[in-house]
Amino acid sequence: MAGQVNPDLGKERENASFNTQKLTNFLYGGAEKVRRRRYIESLAFSDPAYSSDEDPTFMSREEQYSSGLKRAVTMLQRVKELNIAEEDLDTYRSAALQGFGPGIGLHWVAFTPTIVQQATEEQKKKWLKPAQDVSIVGAYAQTEMGHGTFVRGLETTATYDPSTQEFVINSPTLTSTKWWPGGLGKTTNYATVMAQLYTQGKCYGPHNFMVQLRSLEDHQPCPGVTLGDIGPKMEGNGNDNGFARFDHVRIPRENMLMKFARVEPDGTYVQPPSSKLAYSNMVYLRGTFVMSAAYTLATAATIAVRYSCVRRQSEMKPGEPEPQILDYQTQQYKLFPQLAAAYAFWFAAQFMTQQHGTITGSMEKGDMSGLAELHALSAGLKSYTTAVMSGGIDVCRMACGGHGYSHASGLPALFGLGASLCTAEGENTVMMLQTARYLVKCFVQSQGGKTLTGTVAYLSAVQPSPVAGNKNMSDLGTLVAAFQHRAARMVRHAAMQMQNEMQKGKARADAWNSCSVLLIKAAEAHVHSFVVRNFAETVQTVEVDESIRAVLTSLCQLYSLYGITEHAGDFLMDGYLTGGDIDAASSHVSAMLARVRPDAVALVDAFDFHDKTLRSVLGRYDGRVYEHLYEWAKKSPLNKSEVHESYNKYLQPFLKSNRAKL
Amino acid sequence: MAGQVNPDLGKERENASFNTQKLTNFLYGGAEKVRRRRYIESLAFSDPAYSSDEDPTFMSREEQYSSGLKRAVTMLQRVKELNIAEEDLDTYRSAALQGFGPGIGLHWVAFTPTIVQQATEEQKKKWLKPAQDVSIVGAYAQTEMGHGTFVRGLETTATYDPSTQEFVINSPTLTSTKWWPGGLGKTTNYATVMAQLYTQGKCYGPHNFMVQLRSLEDHQPCPGVTLGDIGPKMEGNGNDNGFARFDHVRIPRENMLMKFARVEPDGTYVQPPSSKLAYSNMVYLRGTFVMSAAYTLATAATIAVRYSCVRRQSEMKPGEPEPQILDYQTQQYKLFPQLAAAYAFWFAAQFMTQQHGTITGSMEKGDMSGLAELHALSAGLKSYTTAVMSGGIDVCRMACGGHGYSHASGLPALFGLGASLCTAEGENTVMMLQTARYLVKCFVQSQGGKTLTGTVAYLSAVQPSPVAGNKNMSDLGTLVAAFQHRAARMVRHAAMQMQNEMQKGKARADAWNSCSVLLIKAAEAHVHSFVVRNFAETVQTVEVDESIRAVLTSLCQLYSLYGITEHAGDFLMDGYLTGGDIDAASSHVSAMLARVRPDAVALVDAFDFHDKTLRSVLGRYDGRVYEHLYEWAKKSPLNKSEVHESYNKYLQPFLKSNRAKL
Repeated sequence: MAGQVNPDLGKERENASFNTQKLTNFLYGGAEKVRRRRYIESLAFSDPAYSSDEDPTFMSREEQYSSGLKRAVTMLQRVKELNIAEEDLDTYRSAALQGFGPGIGLHWVAFTPTIVQQATEEQKKKWLKPAQDVSIVGAYAQTEMGHGTFVRGLETTATYDPSTQEFVINSPTLTSTKWWPGGLGKTTNYATVMAQLYTQGKCYGPHNFMVQLRSLEDHQPCPGVTLGDIGPKMEGNGNDNGFARFDHVRIPRENMLMKFARVEPDGTYVQPPSSKLAYSNMVYLRGTFVMSAAYTLATAATIAVRYSCVRRQSEMKPGEPEPQILDYQTQQYKLFPQLAAAYAFWFAAQFMTQQHGTITGSMEKGDMSGLAELHALSAGLKSYTTAVMSGGIDVCRMACGGHGYSHASGLPALFGLGASLCTAEGENTVMMLQTARYLVKCFVQSQGGKTLTGTVAYLSAVQPSPVAGNKNMSDLGTLVAAFQHRAARMVRHAAMQMQNEMQKGKARADAWNSCSVLLIKAAEAHVHSFVVRNFAETVQTVEVDESIRAVLTSLCQLYSLYGITEHAGDFLMDGYLTGGDIDAASSHVSAMLARVRPDAVALVDAFDFHDKTLRSVLGRYDGRVYEHLYEWAKKSPLNKSEVHESYNKYLQPFLKSNRAKL
Repeated sequence: MAGQVNPDLGKERENASFNTQKLTNFLYGGAEKVRRRRYIESLAFSDPAYSSDEDPTFMSREEQYSSGLKRAVTMLQRVKELNIAEEDLDTYRSAALQGFGPGIGLHWVAFTPTIVQQATEEQKKKWLKPAQDVSIVGAYAQTEMGHGTFVRGLETTATYDPSTQEFVINSPTLTSTKWWPGGLGKTTNYATVMAQLYTQGKCYGPHNFMVQLRSLEDHQPCPGVTLGDIGPKMEGNGNDNGFARFDHVRIPRENMLMKFARVEPDGTYVQPPSSKLAYSNMVYLRGTFVMSAAYTLATAATIAVRYSCVRRQSEMKPGEPEPQILDYQTQQYKLFPQLAAAYAFWFAAQFMTQQHGTITGSMEKGDMSGLAELHALSAGLKSYTTAVMSGGIDVCRMACGGHGYSHASGLPALFGLGASLCTAEGENTVMMLQTARYLVKCFVQSQGGKTLTGTVAYLSAVQPSPVAGNKNMSDLGTLVAAFQHRAARMVRHAAMQMQNEMQKGKARADAWNSCSVLLIKAAEAHVHSFVVRNFAETVQTVEVDESIRAVLTSLCQLYSLYGITEHAGDFLMDGYLTGGDIDAASSHVSAMLARVRPDAVALVDAFDFHDKTLRSVLGRYDGRVYEHLYEWAKKSPLNKSEVHESYNKYLQPFLKSNRAKL
């Protein structure tokens, strides 16, 4: 029987209305890229050095740390041996790490890129090669116990001493302790440390400094440096997220990363040329979060949709066999909106990548015009997509019933991973308020007669007075227009409310705060309308195949209509849509659930996630869930012995004494 | 400094508008009950046998299991030594276990109560005393790998053999493997096993059987029994949720729990007298889930509200000190609705307890009339409150930023615990559909002229045609009426839609399925309206104190108005509320956030959760968050040595070889 596919799942694949491989090619940008991706993955999957039997959920914290480090070191060696190309690195790394997220990962995700972006050419000569060759290993030490997203509030100081031409790195308070940086606890021997720069008696704000943390000989902390692990977290416990305290640690002046701002030997601070590059990097980084949101939600949807075709439960009609649980409308209503959102976010992330490329090109020619808009969109998109993804994973988990709660499903770990994206790299509410700030600015400009362009053009184009009337609620153009109307109305409403409050005498900051719930909702509506529009445009320009265009159109309709029914109040408020329109939307949602049902497995298969990437007994490609659930459970540490030692220690004496009293 | 309270938190307490102790007394049913509860807790908190330093989040799976078992055995001994009274048991147990949820817990939660409820007097003589004295230790083995909530689908068989007067317990398929029962893996030596009863060639459905699992001598599995742990889960890993397979295990006829149905020695099946008792027990059990939802959400709110008064971040006005994050409207909008929901659910749970008492009294007099209504309400309430609680904990966690993601916050574990309540004891969607089924039945009866009473009376009383006009959106009566109108409209809409589909020729089951999303939403609206009404009625009858009535009224308004703005579409659909009403509701929400702000800490203090129950560095009563975050982290297993052994094993050789190549 081994190797056979669960017949229910097999049938689903046979009955799909489109060619899965073609959709995969479309998602990844062409057949050649898919081939390449699979080839690179196979290098890791077939490598006996990466044992797929290792399961972090069976391990203690220390075992997770140790196994992750071992795996990462092997991976770094292989990258050199196999000469893995730059553009294949992400694929190879995740195929090799298979769910282990070691602290050393921050070395290539954050430490090395910081050198690339912020070091002078001379500094690069000194640190970039050792970093790239991994003869030093580094952390990116920004967040402190007392400050996260609000970087200006950091308390670590770097005070310049011209007499020795050194900076003194110091942690003046308990809350200034660096807290959270990945790999900082036990792994790294260097870090770029963000600190408030003081020179000539004046504070110039946060800057980055290269600081050695541990001896390259014996890995002991350098004098004045206190290091440690910050303790277990919701997920990611292979990572030694750490703390660091500095007691007047002296570093050479040249250890300040000086590509932009500089401090002269005499202590003179030299302003950086106004640079938008930092913003461009941030836009790029947030784009990767949108892609992560898409991937993570797609992973959860893959697991839950496949399992829902294998699982049969209850009785729909007396006397008939138990139906596949995906045949229940309530199950479809849980899962298909997540599936549709995964596609929507995938395309939104691709838009961000393309736009970032375009903007970077323009910036090199000196044209900064598109940056602010893209920056605002990226902040909101990061916030919106990660929030929807995090909630969506939990929906998928609960849709798998009790088994979704087991680590065998892979969903608890996926949720933990996804959840971290909501507070990391800019807390989501702060991010959304950045978008709101830009939108209010645009609205005011538009009021002043300026014509807006790009993703905010609709703010000035849409009419304030609603256009009621019977609408074709399955037409994508109608749906896009509805989302734009909603967003424009909400932006206007929030901005006007703020103006009202200021006219009544409130300070701008107080008015902003007391309208911030409205502002957040307006910004969410803006981002939502962008995702809908981008999805619709992507679908309308698919040139692959009519059957693929058809199924993606259904998904796009589902995503949009579901959004309308979930936020019906926003569309009904000013009568733009009527109760009848909402009822129609609701009926269309039901129709789209039924339309997507026979293609659901093919739609998740198209994401092309290997079983070793999914790491889910419930989501296996072959659908052989129950056999493997049993095999997986047998490996539980508690099953190493038939009678656990704690029985003899605690339970037996107790039971015996109670029996004796009978 | 030790013992001092964070000054920001101290100020909050000084400025509260009401007496916290009086509100605590109101919540727990009087000063004497509060005193008693604190006394019982103190017995455990002051007992050196329960070390408060033990933290499950620092432990491996095996250590969690072992420590939990040790703690539980100690607790069971103390209960006898201290002669803890029945009504104090829950308080003492949770104070003693402090977050350890051992598998043996199911012995007193499920195994012993099953004997009480389902055994004959003769059977009780045999098993109840050993169970109560814990000379045997049992599991409640119902759920199987292939079947959970749908009990009729269970596959384990109990086939009666009249020749030996035995039942043969068997697991005929892989999916019939008992899967999930707490304590079944390693701890228990007995279980009540739910199995399909076969006798005289006929299946009589699931019944409970007492089965010995392990030897009382050496704890080895009995012949024919295969046992094991099912592996790690999202949370609760001190519990050895287990599996069991039975290979034609023979048990005496007398081991069938025969209080209701019986099998005679010759194999004759004797029908149980129609008993509603099982329903009554289920109503009671679900009531405890509602109380758990209230407690758990209250715990999360306590942590997040206190931390939000200690945490200062960012800059609201240039040059001013960083504000407490609870001063941000966006933070209030996250936390106060959770706080209000915790109060709402607390009162809903108290209603359920009272009603269960009343109904039980009536049933004893032969009056079963109120049972169906309460049963339907309990299913929906269990589903609704656990779902809101689970999402609400995640909101609280994210509101604590990065630190919320650390196990130091206590929130990841709390979320894991809360999440389990959504799929345990009846999956939430199935539960809500039970409520929907009852509501549709009531609606049809009401159409037929029957006057409905109790919690569904409004279904026939509310007029179908909307009554538009300016409404006073801060009046509780207006808000209750709005929720009832919404629910009645949605129940009617779903029921009519179903009738339409059947008139078009759909089978009833298909019509039910294709309307099930509407049905779920209608049932949620019903439960929501009940919670609002019950909250309003509770508030209106508070006799404690004017200041307490005032603050609870504000919370009730917030809960109701927030619900209206979050579900605005439902109220706007038929014009019952207007866009202007929704705007007014939204403004009132802002006003209520500001109103609750100065009382927020006192409102969470009133829940009276001891620090040893909260188990959260962020939520400490004294607010000394940062000192204790540092102390907590130092205890991380990774900090036992300065240089972790895996450095020497993996990292050092790698770094050195890379350096050598330079």
